[in-house]
Amino acid sequence: MRILCTILAIVSAAPALADEGMWTFDNFPAQTVKKAYGVDITTSWLNHVRLSTIRLTNCTGSFVSPAGLILTNHHCVQSCLGELSSKDNSLLDRGFSAADRRRERRCATQLADVLVGMEDVTATVIKAGAELGDKAANEQRKRTLTALEQTCEQADSKAKTGPLKCQAVTLYEGGQYFIYKYKRYDDVRLVFAPEADIAAFGGDPDNFQFPRWSLDFSMLRAYENGKPANTPNYLKINFAGPRTDELVFVSGHPGSTSRQQTPAQLEFERNVILPSVLLRTSELRGGYIQYGRISEASAQLVEAPLNNLENSLKVRRKLLDALHDDQLMARKRDQENSLRALAKLSGTDPWRQIESATAREHTLYLPYTYIEGAAGFNSILFRYARLILRGADERLKPNTDRLREFTDSALPRIEQQLYAPLPIYADVETMTLSFSLQRMREWLGSDYPLVSSLLEKESPDTLATRLVVETKLDDPAVREQLWQGGKAAVDASHDPMLELARSLDRESRSIRRQFEDEVEAPIAAASAKIAAARFKAFGSHVYPDATFTLRLNYGKVQGWTENGKPVEPLTRLERAFERATGSTPFKIPDTWMAAKGRLDMQTPFCIATNSDIVGGNSGSPLLDSQGRIVGLLFDGNIHSISGDYWFDAARNRAIAVHPAIIREALGKVYGAKSLLAEIGAQ
Amino acid sequence: MRILCTILAIVSAAPALADEGMWTFDNFPAQTVKKAYGVDITTSWLNHVRLSTIRLTNCTGSFVSPAGLILTNHHCVQSCLGELSSKDNSLLDRGFSAADRRRERRCATQLADVLVGMEDVTATVIKAGAELGDKAANEQRKRTLTALEQTCEQADSKAKTGPLKCQAVTLYEGGQYFIYKYKRYDDVRLVFAPEADIAAFGGDPDNFQFPRWSLDFSMLRAYENGKPANTPNYLKINFAGPRTDELVFVSGHPGSTSRQQTPAQLEFERNVILPSVLLRTSELRGGYIQYGRISEASAQLVEAPLNNLENSLKVRRKLLDALHDDQLMARKRDQENSLRALAKLSGTDPWRQIESATAREHTLYLPYTYIEGAAGFNSILFRYARLILRGADERLKPNTDRLREFTDSALPRIEQQLYAPLPIYADVETMTLSFSLQRMREWLGSDYPLVSSLLEKESPDTLATRLVVETKLDDPAVREQLWQGGKAAVDASHDPMLELARSLDRESRSIRRQFEDEVEAPIAAASAKIAAARFKAFGSHVYPDATFTLRLNYGKVQGWTENGKPVEPLTRLERAFERATGSTPFKIPDTWMAAKGRLDMQTPFCIATNSDIVGGNSGSPLLDSQGRIVGLLFDGNIHSISGDYWFDAARNRAIAVHPAIIREALGKVYGAKSLLAEIGAQ
Repeated sequence: MRILCTILAIVSAAPALADEGMWTFDNFPAQTVKKAYGVDITTSWLNHVRLSTIRLTNCTGSFVSPAGLILTNHHCVQSCLGELSSKDNSLLDRGFSAADRRRERRCATQLADVLVGMEDVTATVIKAGAELGDKAANEQRKRTLTALEQTCEQADSKAKTGPLKCQAVTLYEGGQYFIYKYKRYDDVRLVFAPEADIAAFGGDPDNFQFPRWSLDFSMLRAYENGKPANTPNYLKINFAGPRTDELVFVSGHPGSTSRQQTPAQLEFERNVILPSVLLRTSELRGGYIQYGRISEASAQLVEAPLNNLENSLKVRRKLLDALHDDQLMARKRDQENSLRALAKLSGTDPWRQIESATAREHTLYLPYTYIEGAAGFNSILFRYARLILRGADERLKPNTDRLREFTDSALPRIEQQLYAPLPIYADVETMTLSFSLQRMREWLGSDYPLVSSLLEKESPDTLATRLVVETKLDDPAVREQLWQGGKAAVDASHDPMLELARSLDRESRSIRRQFEDEVEAPIAAASAKIAAARFKAFGSHVYPDATFTLRLNYGKVQGWTENGKPVEPLTRLERAFERATGSTPFKIPDTWMAAKGRLDMQTPFCIATNSDIVGGNSGSPLLDSQGRIVGLLFDGNIHSISGDYWFDAARNRAIAVHPAIIREALGKVYGAKSLLAEIGAQ
Repeated sequence: MRILCTILAIVSAAPALADEGMWTFDNFPAQTVKKAYGVDITTSWLNHVRLSTIRLTNCTGSFVSPAGLILTNHHCVQSCLGELSSKDNSLLDRGFSAADRRRERRCATQLADVLVGMEDVTATVIKAGAELGDKAANEQRKRTLTALEQTCEQADSKAKTGPLKCQAVTLYEGGQYFIYKYKRYDDVRLVFAPEADIAAFGGDPDNFQFPRWSLDFSMLRAYENGKPANTPNYLKINFAGPRTDELVFVSGHPGSTSRQQTPAQLEFERNVILPSVLLRTSELRGGYIQYGRISEASAQLVEAPLNNLENSLKVRRKLLDALHDDQLMARKRDQENSLRALAKLSGTDPWRQIESATAREHTLYLPYTYIEGAAGFNSILFRYARLILRGADERLKPNTDRLREFTDSALPRIEQQLYAPLPIYADVETMTLSFSLQRMREWLGSDYPLVSSLLEKESPDTLATRLVVETKLDDPAVREQLWQGGKAAVDASHDPMLELARSLDRESRSIRRQFEDEVEAPIAAASAKIAAARFKAFGSHVYPDATFTLRLNYGKVQGWTENGKPVEPLTRLERAFERATGSTPFKIPDTWMAAKGRLDMQTPFCIATNSDIVGGNSGSPLLDSQGRIVGLLFDGNIHSISGDYWFDAARNRAIAVHPAIIREALGKVYGAKSLLAEIGAQ
């Protein structure tokens, strides 16, 4: 399943096709559903589902009991499993099952947010930037959004609901602005996870494939004041699952799509961004795999980052293929031309404006990516160093003047990350840092001033080794002390990783400024114009590009046709045993081999639906028209990847775990009786 | 410098621009040179240069003494240095200098061929395929070429010149056919090589860059009957080097260009071939680098393959960039349209024919690449296995019916490779084989029948390890015995690597057959039509695409303008010391540090010329108008890479080692007095 990546996106010409669409809850096309399927989706249905859906750090989840129990994917808790593992005990490999609630273990960097309110602030934001040049408007817009977040959090802290997290949300690339209000749980604990061998059965080879047999589920629990949270809004599970062609809904947080990008932006993506990221990722993959071949312990250390990497590699490969489809690119150009003809805009053509901004982006791309984007410094320790360094400078400024990632609203999340006692493996850090320094030298050139000064007397490997050995930032206490000590403490520190971050900060900020003023600002201005033209032409019968905010879509359980052959939308347990080879990623764990005799081999395993989903939807509940869970989204088929750019109704399919296999596993393999009872399975 | 890669190519519309062109020696534009530069290039000049130029296995060289001494690049003897190294003594790192001729060491797989004759057989070949369908004509053409080679070798073995190697050469993609006759030296010995740190100073970061300070030279010697060969045709060296703007020539063997490919073929290259090769190469690079980080010994094992890989990666990255230049692609389309308008061909449009053949190629590409192309079996041992297996079958057939790589003419080279006692490092073999099996599974899919049967019960890593441990093909005696034992010996063998090759041979041959009949044949037929149209329009004022056969080009010593700044065409020794960091690839070896006080820091080091060269030209002599060596070609600048598709006169530059630095090194650093005397430097 796709990871999140943020890409600029703008509004396209044609309204959504049938069953396509990632609708906001305030603009769900209930009338269309009623007409097509004869089902009433009421406001109370929508409210209940919204309040039962959870945004995790990178994924979606949902409450499945009144005591804060959360159902999500196994791959969504992978980093938590890594954090709770040691060199000798990999929870990823062995799985985890809390014998009782006291044994549930906190995930140090997990958050669970529930969307409790949405306020439309479009008028205020647009007014703030009106009559300013693109650059000034871009700045002013950011300041306004920060101020609105701040006001919201201060007001709500006095309200009886308790403190809320408020987040500014840009929809339709500047066509709408909202303040989304979340109830946040920052104490989230691991309850249950099966072994990776069954959760990710098929591994990278089967990723984005269907038919499929991956038990990609896990359970967390939200805590409040040290106790399981009281969550009256939760979803019941219908273990029978859905029928073929049954109407189903997905409530979740699709991470990012680029369906409204202009042809110029898509070409830049195809010719520049994707090739360079793919090469970097492939090389690092080779490094990880080779590192993992040293020993079983080393294999465990790189297992989680390798999985993420391979997933993103597969996604980007297919995105590149999608952008090489000349017919679809031609359709995009036609859409641009139709909307241009329809809109009859005066002044600068916004598509041309985006074209020149993208040309400018091309010239800034390498330094921006390697320096400000830190592709040249691929290291957790470097990320800590930069957070601490910039945090010290930024917190001295008024809230609205800061870099957006350091506003008051963002600080608690930063502190959670800095203080979390995560294991850091020096070997892996050195490897990734050395690789990225080498690639920075390759792409920027040995004579690029920053590169030649950094690597003047040390090789990438020597420098990376020294930095990782000598820095103290692997110690959470040191990080906390530096963060709380603010600018004075940071200025006094000679930690080498901090010095590295300091040595390039001026240049890095200056590249970012150029990028924001000369790329981001004109694109934002032009995109807003296109969005306005589109609203004028099509009203609200359009949905915004995904932004990792809550969306609802409808569709049905459905297979598709591949090379002329039908692919059925359901798999069963039996075939998983038949496909097993004994070696990861096709290994059935010992627990399952031992339980084999007790299992019903006809248990449904995975289902395919035509739901319009992308990365970030991982862990989303698949719902029937009564709002009951009938599946757990965890992936899409290979054709779903092009969903970043357009929805291919004929072949784009989502993949979910069937609830029956979850019940079978918890009951007959893991003997997790109290969990079964809690989710109403017994 | 580029490695060789074979790509189909056809003839384009427009004749060559000034100074562009890889001319065959029988069609060198002496008149044009006379007009532009006032210099007479006579037949005896051409004959002398041709007979002094050598084709090595992957490179070019030239005789520089009457006793068979060969000047070429250091990177051209890299594999020989690897073959003569052991885990404890890396000649790549330490360099090599034979104290006297008896200490010169044979390079087990090196050959030196001198082009002594060229016979035009166009009429015979075209007649053989006339009035046949594309598929049958393609077959018949191959049979005819094999027969012509055979006749040539048999005739020449009776001639007084001694046995010759005869090779059929296709020029202008089927516009011309020749039999090239070579005098072959198969006993080639290593005489001198500097340390890799100075030969490849700047390493991958500086590869394809200029200014440059790489002492990329080495010396070999051709032997005959155990004695240094008698080579009356050799080139004198002018140690003063050339002046800026001086007319210079390059005599050498450019490997492969695709300047005559149609837009459809270039798009296939851009959208399919280059991305997939780049990803594979990048991943393997990551694996090699990580393997090399284990220890100094492991770093040495992967040094040579890593260098090759990084070179090809850089080339292909730039090829991809070149193909993303929409203006140049548009120019190619214009050329196609102009020639089509000019030619007024009747019958099927050959460009459309190539378009459909390329579409078919797309569907065959993955199985062809992974199975017949063996990208799924990246292992020296597997290559041995396939050679032995297929050789046994093919040698039972009449010469003209065999796969072209097993004709009688090709057998001596195969035997040399099989019998050479090269070191094989099991760890590296396992790594590359395991990687490639994984990628085959990824790209063909786990359920592709060959993949699922191979990996049914073993993971790629387990299978690779077992095969490498259990095979006996690492022993040259075993390989020789199997080769000489023929089909009976091979059938009786249960060597696991041989069994692997056997298990996929039927499928592999069938994919190849489809490729040859449905892709190669129609493209060959269409390309010949286009070539004929082009000859008709432009006569012989065109040069053929590179085919690793002997070519001569003319140009001058010249810098260029980069980002508005002039790049001078000469570097000097002084700056190399200034750029040194103490770590590879910017490390000056100890021998040079010790000699520093004796060296003239103003010694010219490298020169840039506008010569039109590509990979395969490595090691070519750069000649002045008197036919004296004034440089040793070893690389091109970054803009030269797009030379595969077109010659960018403004920025495409070749890079050569200046003869003065070679004299300085041999005299003052290595004290190689007898060599200096032999090349006339003392």
